[in-house]
Amino acid sequence: MFVHNKRLQYTVRVAEPNPALAAMLLEQFGGPDGELAAAMRYFTQGLSEEDPGRKDMLIDIATEELSHLEVIGSIIAMLNKGVKGDLAEGSLAEAEMFMALNAGGESHTHSLLYGGGPALINSAGVPWSAAYVDSRGERTADLRSNLAAESRAKIIYERLINITDDPGIKEALGFLMTREVAHQKSFEKALYSIEDNFPPGKLPGVERYANMYVNTSQGEGDMTGPWNDGEQWVRVDDLTEVMPSDDGDGSASVTLRASDTKNLAQLAARTASDPSSDPLTGVDLGAGPGSGRTTEKDFGGAKDVQDAKRQAAELTPPVK
Amino acid sequence: MFVHNKRLQYTVRVAEPNPALAAMLLEQFGGPDGELAAAMRYFTQGLSEEDPGRKDMLIDIATEELSHLEVIGSIIAMLNKGVKGDLAEGSLAEAEMFMALNAGGESHTHSLLYGGGPALINSAGVPWSAAYVDSRGERTADLRSNLAAESRAKIIYERLINITDDPGIKEALGFLMTREVAHQKSFEKALYSIEDNFPPGKLPGVERYANMYVNTSQGEGDMTGPWNDGEQWVRVDDLTEVMPSDDGDGSASVTLRASDTKNLAQLAARTASDPSSDPLTGVDLGAGPGSGRTTEKDFGGAKDVQDAKRQAAELTPPVK
Amino acid sequence: MFVHNKRLQYTVRVAEPNPALAAMLLEQFGGPDGELAAAMRYFTQGLSEEDPGRKDMLIDIATEELSHLEVIGSIIAMLNKGVKGDLAEGSLAEAEMFMALNAGGESHTHSLLYGGGPALINSAGVPWSAAYVDSRGERTADLRSNLAAESRAKIIYERLINITDDPGIKEALGFLMTREVAHQKSFEKALYSIEDNFPPGKLPGVERYANMYVNTSQGEGDMTGPWNDGEQWVRVDDLTEVMPSDDGDGSASVTLRASDTKNLAQLAARTASDPSSDPLTGVDLGAGPGSGRTTEKDFGGAKDVQDAKRQAAELTPPVK
Amino acid sequence: MFVHNKRLQYTVRVAEPNPALAAMLLEQFGGPDGELAAAMRYFTQGLSEEDPGRKDMLIDIATEELSHLEVIGSIIAMLNKGVKGDLAEGSLAEAEMFMALNAGGESHTHSLLYGGGPALINSAGVPWSAAYVDSRGERTADLRSNLAAESRAKIIYERLINITDDPGIKEALGFLMTREVAHQKSFEKALYSIEDNFPPGKLPGVERYANMYVNTSQGEGDMTGPWNDGEQWVRVDDLTEVMPSDDGDGSASVTLRASDTKNLAQLAARTASDPSSDPLTGVDLGAGPGSGRTTEKDFGGAKDVQDAKRQAAELTPPVK
Amino acid sequence: MFVHNKRLQYTVRVAEPNPALAAMLLEQFGGPDGELAAAMRYFTQGLSEEDPGRKDMLIDIATEELSHLEVIGSIIAMLNKGVKGDLAEGSLAEAEMFMALNAGGESHTHSLLYGGGPALINSAGVPWSAAYVDSRGERTADLRSNLAAESRAKIIYERLINITDDPGIKEALGFLMTREVAHQKSFEKALYSIEDNFPPGKLPGVERYANMYVNTSQGEGDMTGPWNDGEQWVRVDDLTEVMPSDDGDGSASVTLRASDTKNLAQLAARTASDPSSDPLTGVDLGAGPGSGRTTEKDFGGAKDVQDAKRQAAELTPPVK
Amino acid sequence: MFVHNKRLQYTVRVAEPNPALAAMLLEQFGGPDGELAAAMRYFTQGLSEEDPGRKDMLIDIATEELSHLEVIGSIIAMLNKGVKGDLAEGSLAEAEMFMALNAGGESHTHSLLYGGGPALINSAGVPWSAAYVDSRGERTADLRSNLAAESRAKIIYERLINITDDPGIKEALGFLMTREVAHQKSFEKALYSIEDNFPPGKLPGVERYANMYVNTSQGEGDMTGPWNDGEQWVRVDDLTEVMPSDDGDGSASVTLRASDTKNLAQLAARTASDPSSDPLTGVDLGAGPGSGRTTEKDFGGAKDVQDAKRQAAELTPPVK
Repeated sequence: MFVHNKRLQYTVRVAEPNPALAAMLLEQFGGPDGELAAAMRYFTQGLSEEDPGRKDMLIDIATEELSHLEVIGSIIAMLNKGVKGDLAEGSLAEAEMFMALNAGGESHTHSLLYGGGPALINSAGVPWSAAYVDSRGERTADLRSNLAAESRAKIIYERLINITDDPGIKEALGFLMTREVAHQKSFEKALYSIEDNFPPGKLPGVERYANMYVNTSQGEGDMTGPWNDGEQWVRVDDLTEVMPSDDGDGSASVTLRASDTKNLAQLAARTASDPSSDPLTGVDLGAGPGSGRTTEKDFGGAKDVQDAKRQAAELTPPVK
Repeated sequence: MFVHNKRLQYTVRVAEPNPALAAMLLEQFGGPDGELAAAMRYFTQGLSEEDPGRKDMLIDIATEELSHLEVIGSIIAMLNKGVKGDLAEGSLAEAEMFMALNAGGESHTHSLLYGGGPALINSAGVPWSAAYVDSRGERTADLRSNLAAESRAKIIYERLINITDDPGIKEALGFLMTREVAHQKSFEKALYSIEDNFPPGKLPGVERYANMYVNTSQGEGDMTGPWNDGEQWVRVDDLTEVMPSDDGDGSASVTLRASDTKNLAQLAARTASDPSSDPLTGVDLGAGPGSGRTTEKDFGGAKDVQDAKRQAAELTPPVK
Repeated sequence: MFVHNKRLQYTVRVAEPNPALAAMLLEQFGGPDGELAAAMRYFTQGLSEEDPGRKDMLIDIATEELSHLEVIGSIIAMLNKGVKGDLAEGSLAEAEMFMALNAGGESHTHSLLYGGGPALINSAGVPWSAAYVDSRGERTADLRSNLAAESRAKIIYERLINITDDPGIKEALGFLMTREVAHQKSFEKALYSIEDNFPPGKLPGVERYANMYVNTSQGEGDMTGPWNDGEQWVRVDDLTEVMPSDDGDGSASVTLRASDTKNLAQLAARTASDPSSDPLTGVDLGAGPGSGRTTEKDFGGAKDVQDAKRQAAELTPPVK
Repeated sequence: MFVHNKRLQYTVRVAEPNPALAAMLLEQFGGPDGELAAAMRYFTQGLSEEDPGRKDMLIDIATEELSHLEVIGSIIAMLNKGVKGDLAEGSLAEAEMFMALNAGGESHTHSLLYGGGPALINSAGVPWSAAYVDSRGERTADLRSNLAAESRAKIIYERLINITDDPGIKEALGFLMTREVAHQKSFEKALYSIEDNFPPGKLPGVERYANMYVNTSQGEGDMTGPWNDGEQWVRVDDLTEVMPSDDGDGSASVTLRASDTKNLAQLAARTASDPSSDPLTGVDLGAGPGSGRTTEKDFGGAKDVQDAKRQAAELTPPVK
Repeated sequence: MFVHNKRLQYTVRVAEPNPALAAMLLEQFGGPDGELAAAMRYFTQGLSEEDPGRKDMLIDIATEELSHLEVIGSIIAMLNKGVKGDLAEGSLAEAEMFMALNAGGESHTHSLLYGGGPALINSAGVPWSAAYVDSRGERTADLRSNLAAESRAKIIYERLINITDDPGIKEALGFLMTREVAHQKSFEKALYSIEDNFPPGKLPGVERYANMYVNTSQGEGDMTGPWNDGEQWVRVDDLTEVMPSDDGDGSASVTLRASDTKNLAQLAARTASDPSSDPLTGVDLGAGPGSGRTTEKDFGGAKDVQDAKRQAAELTPPVK
Repeated sequence: MFVHNKRLQYTVRVAEPNPALAAMLLEQFGGPDGELAAAMRYFTQGLSEEDPGRKDMLIDIATEELSHLEVIGSIIAMLNKGVKGDLAEGSLAEAEMFMALNAGGESHTHSLLYGGGPALINSAGVPWSAAYVDSRGERTADLRSNLAAESRAKIIYERLINITDDPGIKEALGFLMTREVAHQKSFEKALYSIEDNFPPGKLPGVERYANMYVNTSQGEGDMTGPWNDGEQWVRVDDLTEVMPSDDGDGSASVTLRASDTKNLAQLAARTASDPSSDPLTGVDLGAGPGSGRTTEKDFGGAKDVQDAKRQAAELTPPVK
């Protein structure tokens, strides 16, 4: 059961209202890496956790994230106090109010709809979605998702710290950012104290595909590193070797019932695009007197790609 | 530039059509951990990568994931060949068609809308959303997101392998599952070959908050482990210590302009809920002759919580 | 700051696992009227509330809703314990597992993706969205939204109670349902203790439109009642009176700059659909030998609507 | 059946184009409280209504809301006439066009995608979603949702009126705002003319929980009022009384089959996080020479929370 | 199987960074008519295509669209290189960084969350959704969807070309725009080389409804043209003819079981809104001393619509 | 202004309740090609149309689509009458109610949330989204979108007709399907009566790219047809010709300010993945005693791809 104490986990001291900054801070209130996402991620995992230690940790951290949601939401509420009053009391002339709302960021649209209250949207106004929560019920995967989520949240806080010089906000964001670092450390400990945590789940992989690196992107810029080279890896540079990777012919097949075969033949015949036709089309009907309206001006009258390439050989190369 | 070869990366051999299974496989086609999510995650990272080795790796793997999207999509297309023909040709009597579509899973709804084609939806019919892609443009965070994503994808493949005994599908899924394992290994190598990869980003954390563990959830079941205990941690069990964690009073404040203060006072006065009133409400108007309609039957006539607890003491405890 | 106690607000005693029932209960975990929606609705309002009494009440109830989220989530976790183990350990043969997942409801798709953990989705698998939270920062509107939300939540619990005979679940759902009733009563008291709460906001309405009822839907079934008839209402049955309701001609106009006028004239000319033409169209190209393929069979060869109506006069009327 | 008359319900006279204002007005075209939401809310309720008087009223008001959608859409179309022509005819130099689109609000992005036409998005560009429609098929709940929706719509119109001094727009918005007031009055009459309308639905609540107020948020700022105090309420301040509220021990339990129990034990063992370990983690590998990079500078070298609090006692308190 | 070559399909030469322009270009990266939508539309169709020629064409074009996604993404990445470095290195003072992010468009919010990387969102920050992909598995419909999609994409590129004078970007966008034109031509050829492509599908329409045009919107502005007039059409101006269009009475009916009838009667009685009542409502309780607060000032004291119209007759008509 | 007549455009005669069928029909009520999408598509276009003939046509058809929304919604309401009564009155025993809701399709989840009323969701429960409406404000594109939309809607109706043998529903769906055919004809006439309608918009394409067909997908199955072959096309089979298509080197470049260059160099150095390292990774820490757990069993002990291929040569090829 949750209980609330009216004191915040970190004191919020805002120097002055600033709705444009508030709009950006929404990223950590209702954004994909924000505190609601964090709280719900750990809370849903905790509810179905079988391991008592992890269950305790997940609920501990989920609860703390709710307190962080309160801290960041309180900062936003303070930053919006001015615009909230203006909107509610209609205290500005219309043109002034219009300009105030257009002063920067997305504050106009958020204030209009939410009246200056902190809303569970990101800084672009997109409502928070539980699709941000990627718990899958397998803990060696979920713990990796958690440490990745903490890393992302740390970065967003870092960016926010870099755009405000209000010392009270900066300090509070510093607290929140650091707590993400601490939580990541906890999740790493919980992951690596599982004896056999890789690969996630129970099924083993198939040996000959587990160490294969397929160099699918080739050309100038091809590189090697420990991620695709060395004793650990079988690197495939000749891609025909993996077309397909197995012993088949790389096609897709299914065994059909006779009735299915008949249906599909009928469907194919009924809707065949005759390759030997040259039909009049809607485009032919529609192209006006200019007949498809293309222009040659940009490329000096080249008639086709090869021709254009010859012409282009004389041009100065771009600065890179 | 992308190029396509008509052979698949893995041969697809499906024993017989099965749209209900196809509906489940959609999880890895248009689901949050599916191949489109994987391909787009690495592709968008690769486009803005400054490190040449990682850029190469990200595009390599993105391209391979597109080939996996093709493999899983081809399996789904094969599984749906029967229903596709039936729908297109109207070859079944209505009642038969209705029953066929209601035979299991979500195949009915997917076939109805998509005609048996593989659609970029998950197994519940929710369209794929780029909100699944959590690239943030900071690579020590993004690489962690990538290895978490590979872990999740591995698990979903494992679950799918466990629900089909079609050997051709099982084998292809085994290939796809194992490639996720290999990709995770690559991302781990890329992450740990960054000399200083923790915490992500550039800003250091604040020391005294980086090692604090707040035991926010207390009661029977409190546990210790390396994630909250030991030399590394300052564990806070007395929560009043962190209400707040800083030197303030745990309140939220902002310095307002005089006009804001006046507006807010006016707003507060205009909309005050008078605590000393006892107003007639809509509920009072609406409660019918039964006056709010509550019942005592479930709890033996207890008048309040304390009374009910006394009564309950005699009941047999539930099996846990 | 939030704190958590490991005991639930209501004891959860589930008789036996039932993932299909769990899938339905998700409606109150991650559905639009579920406990997360309730908690976030009141929490976001509380953060920006100026009235001290309402602020206290909003946070009190928000916190309790989080505890309800925990109760309903715990029921779901218990109902899914069986399928969770099966999925994780791969303990069933494939065909059995496939059948188990297809046994009813949407449990298959939820288990596949979430592994049996409670997920923030509704019973159809749609992720929770903050678009469900309709706080607008004006409390006479927000309190009405709150009492409506409690009413909706009460109904969903009532429907869930009516589909399960597990006594432990029924009892817990009864508790949760009743708490919504109590919360609605609180919100009503808070609303009506605002002296002047209608209409919401500060701007008065325009008198002559405030009591007008426009009878826009006419024909058999037109009714009167206190909502459109009586001293309070000016009822408009002759709709030409409100085409328009004001003193104008019911058209839309704007004063344009000369350059805009010129642009728009040019645009109109360039893209005019010539009403005197009778162009060949894509449809004409595409209609095959059957020439548009229509059939007369359903309507006895009537050539047009009037003719068909004459023919139809002989048919037996449908049972209503 | 719907019929349309080319005259608007209210004459639209716009003084001059203003795409930034148009972008804000979208809130009532494609936003959550806009006219499409209103029309669809009442229309879907009307289709399944059993009570003839309410059915008539719901369709009357739904139809009028469609006419309002037309009025607000026409205002937006007029405000965008200039930018529409510029975009279509390419009549401005590129830099001018770029600046015009960046002149304020979100008009740039809306014009780019929708070409100046009114789009069913809110002022932040989020597409309208039927998730905004909260009809539940139980009329005492639905009517409360309706009156809340009218209240919200009234407020958004009020805010829009306060940001424009175009008299024609202001007047039309005043009409639309007032109609929401009138509609709310109709819905209230329809609700309270149901004899027994509280609580919604048919199932009674459980008596001892229907009057309980749980004071879950405690500390400075705790308040009483008619919503939590007085004869009607049993107020719980000692929260241990409701941990749990029932007669149990506040735990969650389920009776499992033996095979489930075995699976879960195996799962728990296989994935146990060993609490007595102190594993090397990814974080340990990744922390560079700076070893976790924290800084003491912000807090004067305090080693932990208690120490920092002592130091902090000397600092000046913030202005509140 | 997909393969990647490190050279782009079109060389990208960007004159200087410009995140506000980058934000707009996102429309063609992660917007509804962007390159991902195009690629996925044709790819999903290709996977389930039975006609060999179309299958080849669909995969050809899908693959090219992926290469376009790479081109447009690379332009965005170049335009964001400056802000990416600033964000990552924290190289600007806070106020400068804040101003840089607020310099125009939506760049602030995108950079904050995505760090300057190209993200799969549209220019308003809305994540790409597979709901944009409207493949239905019937090729005469799908090919029409494809040619429409190419038309839309062409227009968005045209608008983007009109807002930038960077010659390298302009040229690359010209290439991409023209390729949409070429693709539309291919799809038209494929459609019209199906002998019988209209109407889509197999079922014929009902003759008497296939040529009927219902003039549902009447009044000043009623027009005729080849779309509603001429030999081909039976035009219905007297709408009572189509209320209903069939031989029935235009009502909705169903044959119910006795138990259903009884339930519905009970439901109707239990929740009847008594039309003869005049209940006190929440609105009556809530209207403060101002009693509903309306004003007459805007309309010169008219008491009702008719009266106001009389008064209005003297006013000057608006400029149209 | 919209007006409503209580008679439907087509009489609805439903033989008996069937909530599973109702769930499928939702596709045309709240699905992507359903009647709301159609109505809103044409309505939003009509509001900003400059051509008087098209404006009239768009509003005519939009209005008729609203009447179709009413017809399909009424069918759904009739099909759900039984379950609505059961849910509201709680007239079945719990187990019966549970089974009734699990009888097929998605009816269970829809009834639970919407109480049997028609909801603006598709047959999978996904809420209608205005993202389905692809109006772009350029009419030669929009008209093509409209004719594609009508084609898609025709197909969905055809599929629905094929799954029900209720004659009243079949007949009403036949009417609705045929009206889509008629509407497509109108839109085609409006499109082709624009003299110069291709390519859409005003900017001409670049000649040498307008007729190029890039054969990006090669291998067995390569085909020619009028869409890629013949006088009209310059077909590119040697893909190096279009790497890039222009005169450049196929790279992406931008001219940076010195400060940007410095930042990026610093960023690259700080986060370089050292290609010459071979770091210990999280995976190395995590792989349990089984060391990565792969298995050879599926592929007979092959050590790598080449080896496996040799072994596989002996196996029987799959049936295709």
